[in-house]
Amino acid sequence: MSDLAIASRAVLKPISEIAESAGIPEEAVEAYGRYKAKIDPALLTARGVKPGKVVLVSGISPTPAGEGKSTMVVGLGDALAASGTKTMIALREPSLGPIFGMKGGATGGGYSQVLPMDEINMHFTGDFHAITSANNLLMALLDNHLHQGNALGIDPRRITFKRVLDMNDRALRNIVIGLGGPTEGVPRETGFEITVASEVMAVFCLANGLEDLRDRLGRMTIGYTYGKAPVTVDDLGAAGAMAMLLKDAIKPNLVQTMAGTPAFIHGGPFANIAHGCNSVIATNTARSLADIVVTEAGFGADLGAEKFMDIKARYAGCNPDAVVLVATIRALKMHGGVAKDGLKEENVEAVRLGMANLARHASNIKKFGIQPVIGLNKFATDTDGELAVVTEWAAANGIECAVADVWGQGGAGAEDLAAAVLRAIEAPNNFAPLYDLDQPVENKILTVVREIYGGDGVEYSAGAKRMLEQIHANGWDNLPVCMAKTQYSFSDDPKLLGAPEGFTLQVRDLIPKTGAGFIVAITGAIMTMPGLPKIPAAMRMDVDENGNAVGLS
Amino acid sequence: MSDLAIASRAVLKPISEIAESAGIPEEAVEAYGRYKAKIDPALLTARGVKPGKVVLVSGISPTPAGEGKSTMVVGLGDALAASGTKTMIALREPSLGPIFGMKGGATGGGYSQVLPMDEINMHFTGDFHAITSANNLLMALLDNHLHQGNALGIDPRRITFKRVLDMNDRALRNIVIGLGGPTEGVPRETGFEITVASEVMAVFCLANGLEDLRDRLGRMTIGYTYGKAPVTVDDLGAAGAMAMLLKDAIKPNLVQTMAGTPAFIHGGPFANIAHGCNSVIATNTARSLADIVVTEAGFGADLGAEKFMDIKARYAGCNPDAVVLVATIRALKMHGGVAKDGLKEENVEAVRLGMANLARHASNIKKFGIQPVIGLNKFATDTDGELAVVTEWAAANGIECAVADVWGQGGAGAEDLAAAVLRAIEAPNNFAPLYDLDQPVENKILTVVREIYGGDGVEYSAGAKRMLEQIHANGWDNLPVCMAKTQYSFSDDPKLLGAPEGFTLQVRDLIPKTGAGFIVAITGAIMTMPGLPKIPAAMRMDVDENGNAVGLS
Repeated sequence: MSDLAIASRAVLKPISEIAESAGIPEEAVEAYGRYKAKIDPALLTARGVKPGKVVLVSGISPTPAGEGKSTMVVGLGDALAASGTKTMIALREPSLGPIFGMKGGATGGGYSQVLPMDEINMHFTGDFHAITSANNLLMALLDNHLHQGNALGIDPRRITFKRVLDMNDRALRNIVIGLGGPTEGVPRETGFEITVASEVMAVFCLANGLEDLRDRLGRMTIGYTYGKAPVTVDDLGAAGAMAMLLKDAIKPNLVQTMAGTPAFIHGGPFANIAHGCNSVIATNTARSLADIVVTEAGFGADLGAEKFMDIKARYAGCNPDAVVLVATIRALKMHGGVAKDGLKEENVEAVRLGMANLARHASNIKKFGIQPVIGLNKFATDTDGELAVVTEWAAANGIECAVADVWGQGGAGAEDLAAAVLRAIEAPNNFAPLYDLDQPVENKILTVVREIYGGDGVEYSAGAKRMLEQIHANGWDNLPVCMAKTQYSFSDDPKLLGAPEGFTLQVRDLIPKTGAGFIVAITGAIMTMPGLPKIPAAMRMDVDENGNAVGLS
Repeated sequence: MSDLAIASRAVLKPISEIAESAGIPEEAVEAYGRYKAKIDPALLTARGVKPGKVVLVSGISPTPAGEGKSTMVVGLGDALAASGTKTMIALREPSLGPIFGMKGGATGGGYSQVLPMDEINMHFTGDFHAITSANNLLMALLDNHLHQGNALGIDPRRITFKRVLDMNDRALRNIVIGLGGPTEGVPRETGFEITVASEVMAVFCLANGLEDLRDRLGRMTIGYTYGKAPVTVDDLGAAGAMAMLLKDAIKPNLVQTMAGTPAFIHGGPFANIAHGCNSVIATNTARSLADIVVTEAGFGADLGAEKFMDIKARYAGCNPDAVVLVATIRALKMHGGVAKDGLKEENVEAVRLGMANLARHASNIKKFGIQPVIGLNKFATDTDGELAVVTEWAAANGIECAVADVWGQGGAGAEDLAAAVLRAIEAPNNFAPLYDLDQPVENKILTVVREIYGGDGVEYSAGAKRMLEQIHANGWDNLPVCMAKTQYSFSDDPKLLGAPEGFTLQVRDLIPKTGAGFIVAITGAIMTMPGLPKIPAAMRMDVDENGNAVGLS
């Protein structure tokens, strides 16, 4: 059965019941349809207890199909809730880009899904559309400013901000706009990014409220004057209208898992080209309601988890109390050298070789002062011999490890993992970000490359070097770095699997995100606007005669 | 007090109460927040009576500020409801383009507003975002098709479909995409249109259900092959995924007026560059619930009303039983030759001269077999002498006319107008579209120009002539025409006010919309992507410390 077929057979509770079970008063609930609601954090009543503990679910370097990290978050959350712990889940909202491209939906799978699956995957409560609108309003105002006399003296060749669409649309990567003569705008080179890569998305996910959101929007750098001085959104006067477009979107969205566990799904920057975690507002609102919050950081732990620790936790105080590393036998075999076609065949030796990838991720987590827990996401094709490689390695290295069948069994498949997590959050925790802010940006990038990626050094393009000078000159060195890098490898080369060493990371560009509060380092061939594959997933999607979605993975 | 200030003081009823009062069963109501809901027409119970009568509100050629047509719809609807008639209102959804540009919100004004004002104006239930996504998914799939080998042999120079944004963004009118080399798509010239101008919007508003919507999407022509054969969405295989994105949006949105009258607000093509009426589904669902449906067609009656009769009513059977022509003293003075700065000063002679515009619109309505009713939208600056010009002219010409103060008094200000409308819908009605479909497209355009606009003839550009040949060759002659023309004049020159004669209409381009089922004729300088003014309305918008919208007109 497909995820959509399983999801459509589930019996959902009205969202008001889910809210009540989470301790959310009725006046804070704004229903969006029967099974979705926006929650106003300002209308919640304080519990008078400490904020809930944070369980961060991350993973090994994934295969293109993903290792079921969201599925594991849901299964683990359901298992913790079933064990009697007051639990909430916090996840990112899916992007239409990958849904119509390769990956399909992003709401878990099998019996560990958040529901209603089709609504969450498409439009949901409109947050991404609001972010797209706010971003593109800014750009329309900017190009109109150029057209109407350019009082700020903005250099059209040095505008760094781009328009966005929530779509994989390759042909919009490099475009020329403003053609057609003097009544049709000012010609310039630019491009579109996918919405989840935009700074507006990052700001949305890092703001602690509407006022902070407006301030951060105003601080975003959109380009430079002819005199090379930075121009911000506040210089243009656009932050107010942008905040107005986002005033409802910023409230977290409540849904339920198939087992009825309450889940916030809110915000969704990609972890390869952005910072990769759901909104701070969702995480911290969940912590005010529950004793444990299970949340996720995208792609492998070198990307999502590093950014969770060095950016999100640093800014928002939501330090993780435990980190789960999701691994699959399939991905370990891939890291052990097996080609895509052979991943379903038993290959104990390949699993053993592939453990190098998991081992480095586990050792990386310890560098943040936290003991990792391995969550082995079991597939039907896994053999006992293959699974034993992982569990024996974990035992030998003193790391908690549990095999979980969350796709097939839901929360019941994650009981051992939940027990391991409950032990882990009681263990001593010396959380600290990897690097101090008070040093040049190059040093921070080098620290991430050496400590997390296992590389030797960093090479900057000519453009990136010029931007480094600008960063120093503008006093932006005290910001953390947000690495934009392929998710498939610790390096910037997606083909270097396992645990590569001795490589030099190529930084192609540096983009100061002064509203979000980090410097993005674009490495290797990573792109902020994905393309569609030869046969996009969209081609199998449709509606049936009852108006239901078909083919949504 | 601003419209927003008045709106924010109103006490709204829960949307479930409004639905109940409209005879909508609970199971058909999907709440979106407290005061908005989507209604599933499939879950309504038949009333066993004839569909409600249709009152179409149109107007004279407007000033840039608009003549308060939506405000009149709301006031008239409230007055009819107060008189004991089971009434529903059907309006278009506002577009973000004009909201951030010149016009501000589009939800009526004063004490004749639909609520919640800020939510309807921004994002609402996400319909426009869904339409934007569906349109742009199609384009991403199309450019991906070119990039992945172009199996259909589509000529990149002859792609007629464009991407859209719900934004006034001049710099996107003429662009080149696909730059950057062989991995970055196929370079070609194109542009963005505003969402309300897109054929997806037209299809959305003309479809009678999801299945019809999917079929119409599939029939849309997106371009031509190297052999000049039309290529449709079905050829590309994209209609299913597009329909999936629109499956919830297609359900009409229920809200309430300040007086608690139920209103559907659904779909919103502009009337100058598209067909200008709310969705067929909303109008016909309202007719199944109420005895009278008050609805609107955009801009002057030469645009919105003509298209309502010749396109929407023809396809959907929602023939008008009465047509209200909204006029203002301000606009009449403008048509009488008064400049913008002098419109607030009394000028009886200018009103008399300007009556030529209203007289032609009234005579046009009679050509469809319907007696018009003049609704004179009273402003505080109007003098008795000015108002008397209109009422006396109407009396002399045997046309019903009522002065209404809907901004200041709500429904109470439209009692006379409601009485006139109730008389009009009982009068004999010989409704027929202006032209038969079974004739060449040129003839239909000429008929509209001569009978409605008062012009002498039509001149086609070289490109339009080539497209005429293509229309004949492809058998598209049996479609009605959708004129894209300035709203300020009967002619294609916005400066020719009053009732110009003797002009020749310039048709610059013809665009077959084979999904919507009409041929768009682009005339004069009309553009499908508006620009922002020197000081956009967006600059005064913001959020206050309580998270409320500020400056939304």
